[in-house]
Amino acid sequence: MNVFEQRQRRLQAEVVQRGWSGFLITQNIDLYYYTGSMQTGYLFIPAAGEPLYLVRRSLVRAESEASASVEPLGSLKTLKERLAARYPGLLDAAAGTVRLATELDVLPVQQFQRLQVALPGAAWEDGSLLIREQRMIKSPDEVAAIRQAASVVDAALEAAIPSIREGMAEFELMALIEHQLRLRGHQGLMRMRAYNSELITGMVAAGASAAVPTYFDGPAGGTGLHPSSPQSSGRALLQRGEPILVDIGCSIDGYVIDQTRTLVIGGLEPELLRAYEVAEQVLRATEARLAPGTISEHLYLLALDQVQEAGLSAHFMGYGDDQVKFLGHGIGLEIDELPVLAKGFKYPLAPGMVIAIEPKFTFPGRGVVGIEDTYLITEIGFEKLTISRGGLIVI
Amino acid sequence: MNVFEQRQRRLQAEVVQRGWSGFLITQNIDLYYYTGSMQTGYLFIPAAGEPLYLVRRSLVRAESEASASVEPLGSLKTLKERLAARYPGLLDAAAGTVRLATELDVLPVQQFQRLQVALPGAAWEDGSLLIREQRMIKSPDEVAAIRQAASVVDAALEAAIPSIREGMAEFELMALIEHQLRLRGHQGLMRMRAYNSELITGMVAAGASAAVPTYFDGPAGGTGLHPSSPQSSGRALLQRGEPILVDIGCSIDGYVIDQTRTLVIGGLEPELLRAYEVAEQVLRATEARLAPGTISEHLYLLALDQVQEAGLSAHFMGYGDDQVKFLGHGIGLEIDELPVLAKGFKYPLAPGMVIAIEPKFTFPGRGVVGIEDTYLITEIGFEKLTISRGGLIVI
Repeated sequence: MNVFEQRQRRLQAEVVQRGWSGFLITQNIDLYYYTGSMQTGYLFIPAAGEPLYLVRRSLVRAESEASASVEPLGSLKTLKERLAARYPGLLDAAAGTVRLATELDVLPVQQFQRLQVALPGAAWEDGSLLIREQRMIKSPDEVAAIRQAASVVDAALEAAIPSIREGMAEFELMALIEHQLRLRGHQGLMRMRAYNSELITGMVAAGASAAVPTYFDGPAGGTGLHPSSPQSSGRALLQRGEPILVDIGCSIDGYVIDQTRTLVIGGLEPELLRAYEVAEQVLRATEARLAPGTISEHLYLLALDQVQEAGLSAHFMGYGDDQVKFLGHGIGLEIDELPVLAKGFKYPLAPGMVIAIEPKFTFPGRGVVGIEDTYLITEIGFEKLTISRGGLIVI
Repeated sequence: MNVFEQRQRRLQAEVVQRGWSGFLITQNIDLYYYTGSMQTGYLFIPAAGEPLYLVRRSLVRAESEASASVEPLGSLKTLKERLAARYPGLLDAAAGTVRLATELDVLPVQQFQRLQVALPGAAWEDGSLLIREQRMIKSPDEVAAIRQAASVVDAALEAAIPSIREGMAEFELMALIEHQLRLRGHQGLMRMRAYNSELITGMVAAGASAAVPTYFDGPAGGTGLHPSSPQSSGRALLQRGEPILVDIGCSIDGYVIDQTRTLVIGGLEPELLRAYEVAEQVLRATEARLAPGTISEHLYLLALDQVQEAGLSAHFMGYGDDQVKFLGHGIGLEIDELPVLAKGFKYPLAPGMVIAIEPKFTFPGRGVVGIEDTYLITEIGFEKLTISRGGLIVI
């Protein structure tokens, strides 16, 4: 049984435990996670029996890649009778007793309504948290891909550093790093699950422009190139003595890494240098608790305490109304995975979790300083997956 | 009244005409289209009164960019009373008579359910087609951005061509073109509206690998780098005598262009050369009808006839089960806009529409040939916005 089939089995066990009749998976990334093949269609995981991948396009590709039985999706009008024939008894209970799960966090209403018409009488449950929790624990092949992504990010950063100079535009440095990433296998896009969330490759932002707030749910913003793409790198020029925030990722074999380094041409002014050092201390203190059993929100609360002691609460993870309320986030196929290191997220850390931790301080008009590394939780503690040199990088 | 306020007025007039109480816009791209500022929140366009942009993040950014009144979104628990206070009489009708529209084609079910709880008693209508139809007709500023994107794509392609050589990998050429695009202002991502649809920057695909089918709703596929990113450029090497499909776009000030050229090192085999020439003929015949009043689906049907006459029906826009059923598509802030040149789309062409037209032929095991240009419909006919040299590009 390969890793995709194992995932199907685990989800099937959860379906049975909840008394659902089945899980209809719709999202492209979830489809890949459970089958190994990202096609247009649905994966049906029944409470009993073998999963079925109903594919509109491309059947050829699904048949060659997917670890599941593949059939043409065909018309939604005949979906119910076909499923009923394949899974006798599963869908023909009295109305209201057939409970089907799907990913209500990502599925658009229009498509959901079509499923409601196609499978009348079913009660629909939100299975998105279940999938996100299953995906929270990475298998060795997933960790290997993230490790590879970490190595690509490091190599691309090191390849770009010698070209950094005063007067270079943020977007020029970003373009250079992206090119180095692409030459090393970055797939050219990075995925987020949350509605309306977009990711470029991260951001390079210098001085004041890194501190410009955005809609993006992260501690640094960036002007972006235009109000229609209002985050990440813009046209500001790198200046001597300003922090240059290089928060970049890439995606290798589907898996994302996330890493931030603070660079400076010359040296940082004392207040920002001190804040950078506090960010490093927060990261070290977090590492000291980074082991199975620690509750995810405790790491955030611990950081808040340290930051308050350092007198930097107003600057932590953004400024004013634009502060974000977390210290880190799970990553994998998407960059906004579980667990989140934030209030209300009470996941005990467990082996196989991969978490990006990113203490940062924002000074409006001056810049953002901080550091971000990505960690694997192991049986005995953690392994740092990002490998770039630590500390402030002075050009 | 600026262009964003004009768009709000036009939508408001449609809201009134349909007897709706208001339109709650949720999607980031629609929010930009109607306000000029892409933030996290909702734009409420009431049947009567001034629109209100309720922003969670970033208020600072919204206040400086948006052409609308901005207020903090606050808690959804008090949303109804705040809207009722601001728009007296609008939301307090007897249950069932308050009709609110939103974009059900993109809004996830979870978020929709939260709105249903926040605004009890409202009947929700799907307003997505209305927005898509409004966005179908571009204003002069939108056309200017698309024209600029066309110029950037051409410059990037010309900058890359001298580096093309046998044995170069698809992804290397793609990375080179992307770098050239980014240096000229491409914002680093391209947007699609359809669920699960993703776009890299387009594709560079050589020979057989361009003909590998994918889930992507387009005529050429590409292996991609991995099953987790199963479209666009892969690791195949450019070979002499094979068609190299260069279907690329970029996004400038939010607006997308789409252009395809077929390149070859040396020369094409006769059958593929002939198919390429038929693609050019289809494009010329389409141009001859590209004027106000032509029904969008007729252009597709006309192309089908020509292709059948040429004996190439089996190869048109994909092969076998993986053929796609269109000839072109509107583009603007997203690449999958209206009108679609496909059966069932009966839009009469009108001035201000921008349409990418892409006749292509797929030969499994051998490659894809074709051409794509993007056109503005004018009062008297069309203007071709893409400016790259036509014809097969021989290296």
